[in-house]
Amino acid sequence: MVGKLYGVGLGPGDPELMTLRAHRLISEAKVVAYPTLAGGDSFARAIAADVIADRAREIVMDVPMSTAREPAQAAYDKGAAEIAAALEAGEDVVCLCEGDPFFYGSFMYLFARLSTRFEVEVVPGVTSITTCAARAGLPLAARNERLTVLPGPLPEDELRARIEGAESVVIMKVGRHMAKIRGVIDGLGLTSRAVYVERASLPQEVVCPLAEAPETAPYFSMILLTKGADPWL
Amino acid sequence: MVGKLYGVGLGPGDPELMTLRAHRLISEAKVVAYPTLAGGDSFARAIAADVIADRAREIVMDVPMSTAREPAQAAYDKGAAEIAAALEAGEDVVCLCEGDPFFYGSFMYLFARLSTRFEVEVVPGVTSITTCAARAGLPLAARNERLTVLPGPLPEDELRARIEGAESVVIMKVGRHMAKIRGVIDGLGLTSRAVYVERASLPQEVVCPLAEAPETAPYFSMILLTKGADPWL
Repeated sequence: MVGKLYGVGLGPGDPELMTLRAHRLISEAKVVAYPTLAGGDSFARAIAADVIADRAREIVMDVPMSTAREPAQAAYDKGAAEIAAALEAGEDVVCLCEGDPFFYGSFMYLFARLSTRFEVEVVPGVTSITTCAARAGLPLAARNERLTVLPGPLPEDELRARIEGAESVVIMKVGRHMAKIRGVIDGLGLTSRAVYVERASLPQEVVCPLAEAPETAPYFSMILLTKGADPWL
Repeated sequence: MVGKLYGVGLGPGDPELMTLRAHRLISEAKVVAYPTLAGGDSFARAIAADVIADRAREIVMDVPMSTAREPAQAAYDKGAAEIAAALEAGEDVVCLCEGDPFFYGSFMYLFARLSTRFEVEVVPGVTSITTCAARAGLPLAARNERLTVLPGPLPEDELRARIEGAESVVIMKVGRHMAKIRGVIDGLGLTSRAVYVERASLPQEVVCPLAEAPETAPYFSMILLTKGADPWL
């Protein structure tokens, strides 16, 4: 009997925002897997820490920090081989994914490597975008509105063009791109509508108008441009 | 003591995709509230059915089927007044929301009416878009990709223009707009990339290439246009 691979979304950080299914799969798992970045801690593992069984085996995939693709690809190749060995030995493997596995996550690299050879189930999770909206008290989209999700690292001109033609906008991964993004939003006269959210759902959460946001932001930060809460009366 | 209002996302339909927090709040709730459409059943209530306590009081907001705004506004005014009365009597109220409360949901109408007078907590839920991606085995977005969410009722020309300039696209609420949307996707030569998903995570779920999708779709259906799973090797 070959094992089954689960890519399990853990939600934005508050362990209570994990789904019942994620909780059950992780608590029953004999093998869990997760990536770490350049030897650092795993945010996904931290979210699931109280749920992982004491005697569970942990497969850690350390992904080096690099702009080149090859080192990361090699790390996922190695992790996929370790996971494949466990699956072939008949063990199920639960891969821990912060947020949702298929929404700007790294699980897709394992999925691409393993889904043609093994049964894989992807368990969706609560994403950071609706969590930020919830924490900011800002409906994200309604009725026939369009929603655009833009990664902060995009070039300035592209960000400007995409925001200009959009309705509701979420800018993810603000991090060290804060100054550039702030400039674009200012230039479009949208700063008064922009809300900054950092580490949504965690104890260190920050929610404030973009004008009051810090100069440098962590990777897990976001800017929301929405209509606000009032138009829905 | 005034009560607190919770807008609780229930996820896409499978009760196991409810968060631990949603499960706890609903199971402890003495008053739950939810909308129904034109006297029909409530999908949100159905998802939570096994969690709602037997002796919980239920506030049902029946929203009439109409393209005019006023009848729906009147229904939410009436529902908000009933909820406000419970909150003023010191009861917490848990409003049940399919998916996520602030992602194309109706909770924003209650939030707009009540959040200035009462404490309101929005509990995010798993959305249909990542659930459809999970069920279809299609990563939604990665790295610096943009993601565009478009409601199916948008006019044909607007759909075409927005899809043309996009990377990953999710078209929600396909329903009776199937023929129009299919025409647009065909015209853009994108049919081979398009995947249709209906009632994701429910027993009646359908996942198939758009070319094999039915002529008429239910409201809870979606079309995904993504890069596919292969580019992530």
